[in-house]
Amino acid sequence: MDERDALGQIAKTLPQAGDDAAVISLDSVSLVITTDMLHETTDFPDGTTRYTAGWRAVGASLSDIAAMGGQATAAVAVYGAPAFDPDEIDSFIAGAIDVCDAANAQYVGGDLDTTSELTIATTALGTVTHPSYRHGARIGDCICVTGNLGRTAAGLKAFETGDIAHANELFRFTPRVNTGAALAKHTTAMMDSSDGLARSVHQLASASEVGMSLHWDAIPTHPDVKEYVDDVSTRRELTTTVGEDFELVLTLPSSELANARETTSVPLHVIGEVTESDNGIIIDDESLPDEGYTHATK
Amino acid sequence: MDERDALGQIAKTLPQAGDDAAVISLDSVSLVITTDMLHETTDFPDGTTRYTAGWRAVGASLSDIAAMGGQATAAVAVYGAPAFDPDEIDSFIAGAIDVCDAANAQYVGGDLDTTSELTIATTALGTVTHPSYRHGARIGDCICVTGNLGRTAAGLKAFETGDIAHANELFRFTPRVNTGAALAKHTTAMMDSSDGLARSVHQLASASEVGMSLHWDAIPTHPDVKEYVDDVSTRRELTTTVGEDFELVLTLPSSELANARETTSVPLHVIGEVTESDNGIIIDDESLPDEGYTHATK
Repeated sequence: MDERDALGQIAKTLPQAGDDAAVISLDSVSLVITTDMLHETTDFPDGTTRYTAGWRAVGASLSDIAAMGGQATAAVAVYGAPAFDPDEIDSFIAGAIDVCDAANAQYVGGDLDTTSELTIATTALGTVTHPSYRHGARIGDCICVTGNLGRTAAGLKAFETGDIAHANELFRFTPRVNTGAALAKHTTAMMDSSDGLARSVHQLASASEVGMSLHWDAIPTHPDVKEYVDDVSTRRELTTTVGEDFELVLTLPSSELANARETTSVPLHVIGEVTESDNGIIIDDESLPDEGYTHATK
Repeated sequence: MDERDALGQIAKTLPQAGDDAAVISLDSVSLVITTDMLHETTDFPDGTTRYTAGWRAVGASLSDIAAMGGQATAAVAVYGAPAFDPDEIDSFIAGAIDVCDAANAQYVGGDLDTTSELTIATTALGTVTHPSYRHGARIGDCICVTGNLGRTAAGLKAFETGDIAHANELFRFTPRVNTGAALAKHTTAMMDSSDGLARSVHQLASASEVGMSLHWDAIPTHPDVKEYVDDVSTRRELTTTVGEDFELVLTLPSSELANARETTSVPLHVIGEVTESDNGIIIDDESLPDEGYTHATK
């Protein structure tokens, strides 16, 4: 059973587990909580600094808060490593604190564990007024993406080519927490692009029981993808399947587009429209497979 | 640098990280959050069922909420394993749900990760009215422990001797959440015994800048320790150093003892008293070393 099937099974037992984060009611507050695990073999290429690892691991959970339209409150992490080097731990914590600062959240620590490879488990907690789920997209809605896609694909290329400092920069994305919270009033459905654009639209479509039609030329590509990849079809594949760009993929009525854009300085690109479910998931009239890129870094 | 020194270093940067859980203010509510990682090599002996692993891993985080005097609200977990077997995942989730039920908390899911060995990261969230920290113990206070100690030591022996069903039962402790929340109004300091009694009293004493004097004969021992271990000095060592019994170790003025006992059906044993810091940490007039038992199960 692969990870996706297993997650599908879990969602049957635990309905709250089927979205980017779980929503919990507590007195008059709606809390949102999410957890993730990243490890060296698949998530941190050789050359990833501990500062970047702390930033990126905590950022991945903050991005899930963003995907629900939540405001981030706090994050914790477990730092698992074969040995505890004081400088590495300091760097990891500095990265965790800085990404929390970028999302107006508080990093409140966590725990250590001795593991065979660097393994980081993070949890983020937030509050939400207008939760935005994966379900809710309606026929005729615009499909939008924030910022641009391919940042992580470019980062992986930069690690491969030895451009380590730049690769680390590319790996330190800004979680779209403020943008997600601002957009949630306008969206009908939202998630983050952590599994790649292709999987994200499949998941939004499946949860909302609709079809989706995308346009290649409308998909915003990170400028560095063009630097590292000449071939256009490879570039397109990387942009739609690599994922872990932690942008927001969302739907909203076209009448809300102007209002939504006014709430955030982050560009909001219309990349397609919601269709009837019979139309399936297509891009420029071709079927878009539900595929992500498995980025084992080792 | 060992795990304890590393945790000490982290506590300097992140003051909230130096206790069993971090307290966060949110509107009119005080939240308490904590995270842990457990893995096969050190935490789950051969024969541990996935149900027990789910129960115990989530229970360990719930115990940290208890240690702060919090009420548990929700828990999440990342289930990392080399492969995803549907029955194993169902069992894991059933264990996680059942331990949450035992603590009046809600299990709201989490994530999956492919890891080389079973690795479980858990996070628990709660609310707290009277947080009880590791600092605050005062000279003359009683030192108390809930329930009894040695349950995990007995469980490890049961795994060793092939008494697997009983070993699994012993490994499924009840987190003392309701007891911790009830006692917190009366305590001056509290933590859980996850690192063993010896380390717990050292940590309470250090945070509170006091000494502690314990009495062997007053320390309540799990009946199964006697079943598995004949030698009295080994029994004593196991009872004080193995840890992971997830009982509460706390201090309170003797005038509060009767009131405290009335709030919970769990036995509250007086095992010593708080002294001046110059007296150090002693048990029956001998120094009690700050030692835990490293229980690599493989």
